[in-house]
Amino acid sequence: MAVKVSVVGAKGRMGSHVVEAVQGAQDMQLALTLDAGDDLTTITPSNTDVVVEFTVPSVSLNNVLALIAQGVDVVVGTTGWTADKLAQVTAALENAPRENQQVFIAPNFAISAVLADHFAKVAAPYFESAEVIELHHPTKVDAPSGTAIHTAQGIADARRAAGLGAMPDATETDGGSRGQVIDGVHVHAIRLRGLNAHEEVLFGNAGEQLTIRADSFDRISFMPGVLLAVRKLAAGGHSGLTVGLDKFLDL
Amino acid sequence: MAVKVSVVGAKGRMGSHVVEAVQGAQDMQLALTLDAGDDLTTITPSNTDVVVEFTVPSVSLNNVLALIAQGVDVVVGTTGWTADKLAQVTAALENAPRENQQVFIAPNFAISAVLADHFAKVAAPYFESAEVIELHHPTKVDAPSGTAIHTAQGIADARRAAGLGAMPDATETDGGSRGQVIDGVHVHAIRLRGLNAHEEVLFGNAGEQLTIRADSFDRISFMPGVLLAVRKLAAGGHSGLTVGLDKFLDL
Amino acid sequence: MAVKVSVVGAKGRMGSHVVEAVQGAQDMQLALTLDAGDDLTTITPSNTDVVVEFTVPSVSLNNVLALIAQGVDVVVGTTGWTADKLAQVTAALENAPRENQQVFIAPNFAISAVLADHFAKVAAPYFESAEVIELHHPTKVDAPSGTAIHTAQGIADARRAAGLGAMPDATETDGGSRGQVIDGVHVHAIRLRGLNAHEEVLFGNAGEQLTIRADSFDRISFMPGVLLAVRKLAAGGHSGLTVGLDKFLDL
Amino acid sequence: MAVKVSVVGAKGRMGSHVVEAVQGAQDMQLALTLDAGDDLTTITPSNTDVVVEFTVPSVSLNNVLALIAQGVDVVVGTTGWTADKLAQVTAALENAPRENQQVFIAPNFAISAVLADHFAKVAAPYFESAEVIELHHPTKVDAPSGTAIHTAQGIADARRAAGLGAMPDATETDGGSRGQVIDGVHVHAIRLRGLNAHEEVLFGNAGEQLTIRADSFDRISFMPGVLLAVRKLAAGGHSGLTVGLDKFLDL
Repeated sequence: MAVKVSVVGAKGRMGSHVVEAVQGAQDMQLALTLDAGDDLTTITPSNTDVVVEFTVPSVSLNNVLALIAQGVDVVVGTTGWTADKLAQVTAALENAPRENQQVFIAPNFAISAVLADHFAKVAAPYFESAEVIELHHPTKVDAPSGTAIHTAQGIADARRAAGLGAMPDATETDGGSRGQVIDGVHVHAIRLRGLNAHEEVLFGNAGEQLTIRADSFDRISFMPGVLLAVRKLAAGGHSGLTVGLDKFLDL
Repeated sequence: MAVKVSVVGAKGRMGSHVVEAVQGAQDMQLALTLDAGDDLTTITPSNTDVVVEFTVPSVSLNNVLALIAQGVDVVVGTTGWTADKLAQVTAALENAPRENQQVFIAPNFAISAVLADHFAKVAAPYFESAEVIELHHPTKVDAPSGTAIHTAQGIADARRAAGLGAMPDATETDGGSRGQVIDGVHVHAIRLRGLNAHEEVLFGNAGEQLTIRADSFDRISFMPGVLLAVRKLAAGGHSGLTVGLDKFLDL
Repeated sequence: MAVKVSVVGAKGRMGSHVVEAVQGAQDMQLALTLDAGDDLTTITPSNTDVVVEFTVPSVSLNNVLALIAQGVDVVVGTTGWTADKLAQVTAALENAPRENQQVFIAPNFAISAVLADHFAKVAAPYFESAEVIELHHPTKVDAPSGTAIHTAQGIADARRAAGLGAMPDATETDGGSRGQVIDGVHVHAIRLRGLNAHEEVLFGNAGEQLTIRADSFDRISFMPGVLLAVRKLAAGGHSGLTVGLDKFLDL
Repeated sequence: MAVKVSVVGAKGRMGSHVVEAVQGAQDMQLALTLDAGDDLTTITPSNTDVVVEFTVPSVSLNNVLALIAQGVDVVVGTTGWTADKLAQVTAALENAPRENQQVFIAPNFAISAVLADHFAKVAAPYFESAEVIELHHPTKVDAPSGTAIHTAQGIADARRAAGLGAMPDATETDGGSRGQVIDGVHVHAIRLRGLNAHEEVLFGNAGEQLTIRADSFDRISFMPGVLLAVRKLAAGGHSGLTVGLDKFLDL
């Protein structure tokens, strides 16, 4: 039986892609499509199994709390989640109307990016050197990307856990070309017209290199991850709040 | 206390690097170094904890059997192991003079290559498309490389296990540019002066790509893997025959 | 004074991008936009300086001949031009109503691809080895791409002119992984969901490699080349037929 | 008739490779091999056509002046040449004992690096964005590399000549990840165990990217460039001082 999926933020940049992706999935059925101003209480367990919420940070928390109160499971793609906001979601889920109710939030739905971040952590203990390059379109206002910071921290954690010390680096004179050091890991940000969102992680030992690269050319790249999350919630077994698409991959 | 390491094939291309690597490792001590014609029975548990054997396929099996009879643990880097040869090692280990005696054989000691092969298997279920490119020096006589074949088969197995069908490919006319199809996976071999041994695995979904690349610039890249294997056998817990460096990585 | 640009095939996939690109160019002014069924004789030197023609191979020749008769300069992006068709254009231009009338036809308007193809020819004489990899979306029906064939032939010509012999290649056993050999150059075609049109040229000498890669992520990448061609014809000095965007780059 | 080549610094890291390269070249004949302490006046036009000088910056100028006085042509691979030192060479050549005497000095003999630097200049006018990444072994003390600085300046010059303004970059917050800005071009330096000397130049327009990458895996990569320079001087026609291998390539 097809999973009934409603979309909140259905006319937005991401939401419109979600609507198309759900319509194209044989095991799903598009239920309601809502946007700013629409009444969230029209979404109920009788018409919806899973809601996908892709709106803006300023309204997303309230949307999610309202949807929890409606008794439906929610996949959230909106960014901007702080520890405090996540705590409010957890608290709401403890008092949710339906047993085993589920909310899933992911900062990045691109499977390639999530896998690259994971593989970087796994590989880190085995290499003397590691650096992170992220490449984005030139209209991005922050550098480096949140994903690159996360990857660098994952590498740093894995190196510490393995008892590795500082990476070799004899640099004496530099005018800034060595990039930003995050938890001991050098991170470099490229801004290039034509690019979208890309990350490359370089590992080195004497005589060898390992490179892991994730390219997101288009926001349509988030759709396989969104559909995967919908299927996981529809299958159940993830009650409460789950954060991060890596939790739903078989890693 | 330092691990006492003897090297068989000590003057060979790989063996001479092993001698240097052991000498450079603070937790190891170089014991005996033997070459063709030398008496393997000089190697005993009293002077050696672990032997590293890097010779040629035609003599390696006999060397390993002799070393098992001497009661020492063996790390084998020589290639050319068939199922039949491996079975002889397993049988010999069952009658080994020392309890919990260990033999470790790896077709590839480059950590980057072993990780790339592993990551390819993990990533494969999540992508519509996957192809393998291997790049080697132009004096290599076989194409594609054994590593590339192994990677392609790992991808194919992972896709089958995940229930994925054939990859999308509308090619109607081709004069051979699409490469060799191994278990449904297209494999391409590049031969270029200046290269050594390299592998690149490409995965694609709508709007995204994941690339995993391992470069071995020099045979010195095998040394971290050899030392890792020596340490694993010295620490014990791997009695019998173990094949593949991935078994000794925390994956 | 702004260049007056008319677009034939204005509602097509490429033509609609051309309309937007012309509207976005400060030194151009959009004149007429025509599609199948529209009367080409409405385009005259009084309302149009340069016409951009992006239609389909079956009608493009007739369009171009009609536009020449109208006395306007034409930039043609439609593919499928044979030597015979080109000869008809040349003949028509000799009897064109306006002096120094110009037609420009390019098989590829992506500047990165045109530069990569050119650089490959320049680099070829200096390397022992060279191979070409092209990567495209999996709905492409031909392999390898016309661009890759052109690049391979350019490399082969440059090697011959420099007196270079065959590339080093000791391959004895291969099941097809070495790709298609075009004029002595190995060409490999990758088909991967998520990609659009990409080419990578690898050159190798002992101890060094040169890599030239062109990525076209989107057909919008053709627009800078189209606008460049329009500006070149508007500036004059290219009377008769010119084929290939490289002619309009400062190479 | 074979070109008679003498090597000064013949036992050094680079010089020993030059000796081997000359011995391996069918059109050359190894003449004298000298090292620190040896008498340069043993080198004369009767035994030597071209000298290759690969020593250290502190002695190279004196060596070159002495060799000019001997009446032989010189290919210089030693680095550390300042404008003042070059002027002394030029002056000495004006009073050289032999007519049309030639000295050639190159900061980089790797053909791939020289070509990449050249191609970057040619491509620069055609792209909105350009950034430079250099990657080296972690024992290098300066960052970014001299080659990367040269490439960035070449890009900047070419953009200025083409009337291009600043590259698009909306970055508002950055902790250093955007690298060092050299003449308006962002330059990033990676330091990774296992690497030698590598440079990657990225160009971007809407929807497209051009990448030019030079990898020097080993100092043997300088030999084709050294032999090329020897042949050019042996053929004559470059009297006086010539700086830069690009002058000897057909670009």
